[in-house]
Amino acid sequence: HRPPCTDFDVAYFHSYSHLGIHHEMIKDRVRTETYRDAIMQHQSFIAGKVVVDVGCGTGILSIFCAQAGAKRVYAIDASDIALQATEVVKANNLSDVVLVLHGRVEDVEIDEEVDVIISEWMGYMLLYESMLGSVITARDRWLKPGGLILPSSATLYMAPVTHSDRYSDSVDFWRNVYGIDMSAMVSLAKQCAFEEPSVETITGENVLTWPHVVKYIDSYSVTINELESVTANFKFNSMMRAPLHGFAFWFDVEFNGHAISSTNYHLATPFIDNHQMNGGQRKKKSNSNEALVLSTAPEDPPTHWQQTLIYFYDPIDLEQDQVIEGLVRLSQSKENARFMNIHLQYTTGGRSFVKESVMR
Amino acid sequence: HRPPCTDFDVAYFHSYSHLGIHHEMIKDRVRTETYRDAIMQHQSFIAGKVVVDVGCGTGILSIFCAQAGAKRVYAIDASDIALQATEVVKANNLSDVVLVLHGRVEDVEIDEEVDVIISEWMGYMLLYESMLGSVITARDRWLKPGGLILPSSATLYMAPVTHSDRYSDSVDFWRNVYGIDMSAMVSLAKQCAFEEPSVETITGENVLTWPHVVKYIDSYSVTINELESVTANFKFNSMMRAPLHGFAFWFDVEFNGHAISSTNYHLATPFIDNHQMNGGQRKKKSNSNEALVLSTAPEDPPTHWQQTLIYFYDPIDLEQDQVIEGLVRLSQSKENARFMNIHLQYTTGGRSFVKESVMR
Repeated sequence: HRPPCTDFDVAYFHSYSHLGIHHEMIKDRVRTETYRDAIMQHQSFIAGKVVVDVGCGTGILSIFCAQAGAKRVYAIDASDIALQATEVVKANNLSDVVLVLHGRVEDVEIDEEVDVIISEWMGYMLLYESMLGSVITARDRWLKPGGLILPSSATLYMAPVTHSDRYSDSVDFWRNVYGIDMSAMVSLAKQCAFEEPSVETITGENVLTWPHVVKYIDSYSVTINELESVTANFKFNSMMRAPLHGFAFWFDVEFNGHAISSTNYHLATPFIDNHQMNGGQRKKKSNSNEALVLSTAPEDPPTHWQQTLIYFYDPIDLEQDQVIEGLVRLSQSKENARFMNIHLQYTTGGRSFVKESVMR
Repeated sequence: HRPPCTDFDVAYFHSYSHLGIHHEMIKDRVRTETYRDAIMQHQSFIAGKVVVDVGCGTGILSIFCAQAGAKRVYAIDASDIALQATEVVKANNLSDVVLVLHGRVEDVEIDEEVDVIISEWMGYMLLYESMLGSVITARDRWLKPGGLILPSSATLYMAPVTHSDRYSDSVDFWRNVYGIDMSAMVSLAKQCAFEEPSVETITGENVLTWPHVVKYIDSYSVTINELESVTANFKFNSMMRAPLHGFAFWFDVEFNGHAISSTNYHLATPFIDNHQMNGGQRKKKSNSNEALVLSTAPEDPPTHWQQTLIYFYDPIDLEQDQVIEGLVRLSQSKENARFMNIHLQYTTGGRSFVKESVMR
């Protein structure tokens, strides 16, 4: 239950004590308003119940839950921002309802079972620096059978992208610099620009095919073990003739659960079939019900998560209907547990490639 | 002549081996085109002469000098970017003219006196992480009497600013967050947003008075000693009624010298009087001749240097003609020689304040 707090943990928690990062997250209206809407949509379940907010930050989601009628909210954060959250709760006369616990989910004590776990745990590319492990710990320590987890599921997608402007700005720029041929820089330019994953905003027009599910996460059943290494095979058919510059990754999370299905979620598992879990391509936004979705897809309004791009050093000219197949593996770095290794191998037009990158 | 290469030096040189930083600097057209224009304006002096480029980076200024007819250009850089510069020079068939020296100015050897020193040495707020010390070393080691230094001078300015939008976005934001009173965050928000100097772009409309000269640097006579600590008194009269949010700093550099005055620059010193060196307020852009100026002032086109802002934790309501007086001292940090301490004390409306900040 209580792994030691590493130096990396300390640095991570400390980074969240700076208010700027919370400012940026709260200002992200897509994020914050979708969470608020999800809480209000589940108001009838939350009212009178006990809630845990994992990684509460400024306490905003805990206060939304209090406004939805929660009997008690345990707001947990290991960062010093918890001290500020305590003050905010007090200033809003909610100290009787929202109890801020300053510590790790592994270390704090709650002397009752809880009905609801809410958490905004998602990192870039869903899993980078994510707090999902803490949500799992909270679930296994405290959640009642039949309890609610928000979000109820998360899905990481990938798709091949074309992005000539970006490539040209980073690489072709050097071919003519105020009339000087600096092509000698091109090889270094590719390495500097494209060695590491890049968090940036693209649009639907950059995306060459329907996306592919890399990982579907059911908040109720996911285990720490299955997150250590995530592997997915993919096979895309390019919908147009275009230069392929790399792959984009993004995610969505769904706020499904008891407000939608009155039966026990563990029995209903309504999304498994929809998601075509065995590596099939998923039609975008295929929700068959009205579950709220927080999407970070290129065709949806931008969020602070943007998209994560992995560019190739050289583009590949694709014909229409050309197949790109391969596999992607995301795994914890041995160098630093908070880094994520991304192994990509892909074959198209008879040529095979491997791209290793590290998200730091 | 040869101080040891510290860990900070190594980190500094290494940071310039990443191409992105050079890309950003070269893309700054105000910077690069003003340097090119300055070289071309001094073409009659440079033609047939020996040039040193201090901190050559990709080698672009060295190549401009070769295009201007220099007999030989020593392009010096301690960062690994020098390896790329060598390739660029070779690809442009200039290896006979441009000799790239990979090392510190203190460590490399040049077996002749030089006629011209060119360098783009300016850092944020002019002096932060600047290479001026290396320019001084190069001058004292190699420059002929009567030689040319480009830029020939630099001036650091400051002025009081009003910036309600910026203050409000960082501070007042917390007073109503999706209907929740988070005023408890305000004190931390001020600290996080305004403790350190902020590099950002403002406009002339943010500036409340004519600027004041903090430091005038004559490239020909400046010494390392006088840069260790720079102190200036200031006295401003607010030109309008407005909330005072802090002070902005910016600089310009001038490319004066032999193309303009055919007499020896050391005798001419044409700018000392114009600059009213004894702490007087200087009228903007008061060049009495046609010397080229690279300006990073708020009213001029933006550059990658932007402006450097030091905000107060709380604004001060100024009346028209209200006096703000005080002093500013810039000095090397003892903690890290590359950090700069900024000590500000100011009095207005009968109240006195001190603000200490560190640029890291």
